[in-house]
Amino acid sequence: MILTVTLNTALDITYRVRALRPHTSHRVTEVVERPGGKGLNVARVLAALGHEVTVTGFAGGATGRTLQERLRGVGRLRDALVPVDGATRRTVAVVDASTGDTTQLNEPGPTISPAEWTAFQEAYEVLLGSVSAVALCGSLPPGVPVGAYATLIRAARAASVPVLLDTSGEPLRRGVAARPDIVKPNADELAELTGSHEPLQAMKDARRRGAHTVVASLGAEGLCALTPDGVWHAPAPGRLAGNPTGAGDSAVAGLLSGQAERLPWPERLARAVALSAATVVAPVAGEFDRQTYDDTVTRVTVSQRAGAA
Amino acid sequence: MILTVTLNTALDITYRVRALRPHTSHRVTEVVERPGGKGLNVARVLAALGHEVTVTGFAGGATGRTLQERLRGVGRLRDALVPVDGATRRTVAVVDASTGDTTQLNEPGPTISPAEWTAFQEAYEVLLGSVSAVALCGSLPPGVPVGAYATLIRAARAASVPVLLDTSGEPLRRGVAARPDIVKPNADELAELTGSHEPLQAMKDARRRGAHTVVASLGAEGLCALTPDGVWHAPAPGRLAGNPTGAGDSAVAGLLSGQAERLPWPERLARAVALSAATVVAPVAGEFDRQTYDDTVTRVTVSQRAGAA
Repeated sequence: MILTVTLNTALDITYRVRALRPHTSHRVTEVVERPGGKGLNVARVLAALGHEVTVTGFAGGATGRTLQERLRGVGRLRDALVPVDGATRRTVAVVDASTGDTTQLNEPGPTISPAEWTAFQEAYEVLLGSVSAVALCGSLPPGVPVGAYATLIRAARAASVPVLLDTSGEPLRRGVAARPDIVKPNADELAELTGSHEPLQAMKDARRRGAHTVVASLGAEGLCALTPDGVWHAPAPGRLAGNPTGAGDSAVAGLLSGQAERLPWPERLARAVALSAATVVAPVAGEFDRQTYDDTVTRVTVSQRAGAA
Repeated sequence: MILTVTLNTALDITYRVRALRPHTSHRVTEVVERPGGKGLNVARVLAALGHEVTVTGFAGGATGRTLQERLRGVGRLRDALVPVDGATRRTVAVVDASTGDTTQLNEPGPTISPAEWTAFQEAYEVLLGSVSAVALCGSLPPGVPVGAYATLIRAARAASVPVLLDTSGEPLRRGVAARPDIVKPNADELAELTGSHEPLQAMKDARRRGAHTVVASLGAEGLCALTPDGVWHAPAPGRLAGNPTGAGDSAVAGLLSGQAERLPWPERLARAVALSAATVVAPVAGEFDRQTYDDTVTRVTVSQRAGAA
């Protein structure tokens, strides 16, 4: 069983319009609604790969009920979201039908009370007793302390559960200091954390700050992993047309799945890069295309630069 | 008891953002959610004026549940919405905090099945037995026949219940032919119905097409009523700064309230114009400012041009 944590879950709504023009009225031609938040996206990909997965975090209000109803339809996925008084936030992606360009509107999310945060931590500690890996994903909702991920990482380490952190800003900085097994920043997050725009330098700095392994997602350049044993690079398989939404979450699912199966790093990276690519080309944002994944995963060449750590 | 019909109810969501820029990401700083659709807006104003009011139309899905929960908080308002399988649509108004400019995104609404439309008509006929007036408001959802309002007007007339129609396009054209007591088009709707951009000519044409009385809302010029007894004009009380959303619905509430109290036309128009003005200046879209209403209603001067009908 793998556990994913999404403290700021969302009901992701996609609207298709002809073209968004500010300060006018638009008829929405298509509405798609799905459970969202990075940890839920990761969990869906893990379940599709055949892993048993439990999701936790917060859910509340009418939007939370809708989100949980939708999760019931996903096989191999167990819902352990903790109820809160506030309503789960919505995100609205407005897609221009002609160009595919997307305008994003993100609600702030409900304020979590101290009692709700305590209830979550208790539930999380119980869940840690029965999982082989945990991913901590995404932003923090209002009310949750900025050091939340550091607390959750320490609890995972105390329970000897490998822990992956995928967040940004101050929660990432505090989380890294709590010595997670893996952090997966993108280039911007890495630069913000370390002040360096040179990826390898920045990754080394992130390791010095506490991360055991740093896997940086570098867009078209693919993934780069800095581990205690060396550096691996898995380039993206060519230029891909499609929607990058969720590609990072699919990469996390690949890394976590490889962690749970104790795969060597090159195989983990190949899986993560192939899942990212299969997500970009999938017609529905956040889904992945199985055929592309199967075709790509065997073709990815992972190269090593030993001893660089 | 007054009845309002909203076949295309909506959960109206207002997002405040700093400034909407297409193809970028936005943090929503404020979320307001309220029951919407023209007939529900009319009903809320009627209830605030002290009338007992029943709302009917359709509600379904998680959004429909939220809408009905919110209606339970409104005094003097009885919910007789008919359940449907599809989910009630959302409308999203994105307001630029700096300028107040609004970008509107309207979901299409659920498709109503023939069985649901039949169930509605049966419920409507029962409700007609205990009401003093009925308003038919807004657009038709997919699945409802374009002649729906004509059918509902004939049923109201058969039950001797005065009926007001506030819609546009083909549903207005068909509805007018069924001889409603009052139609309340705005200038654009009137021009689309009649082909004439000269309001008085167009109103005369609308009466010839079947409407007993035509009340045209002419924006800053106020309201003009063409009745069997003559023409009345109620100018808007000066230039008003604010949000015109819901001003037309408030005018309908004023007309309907006057109809239920059998007020003479000048008083009905004064009430409608004052409610419109009080809605424009209210801080929340669709609400009305009681003080502005009280101050304005006695100051409106309604002038008559006799015999013009």
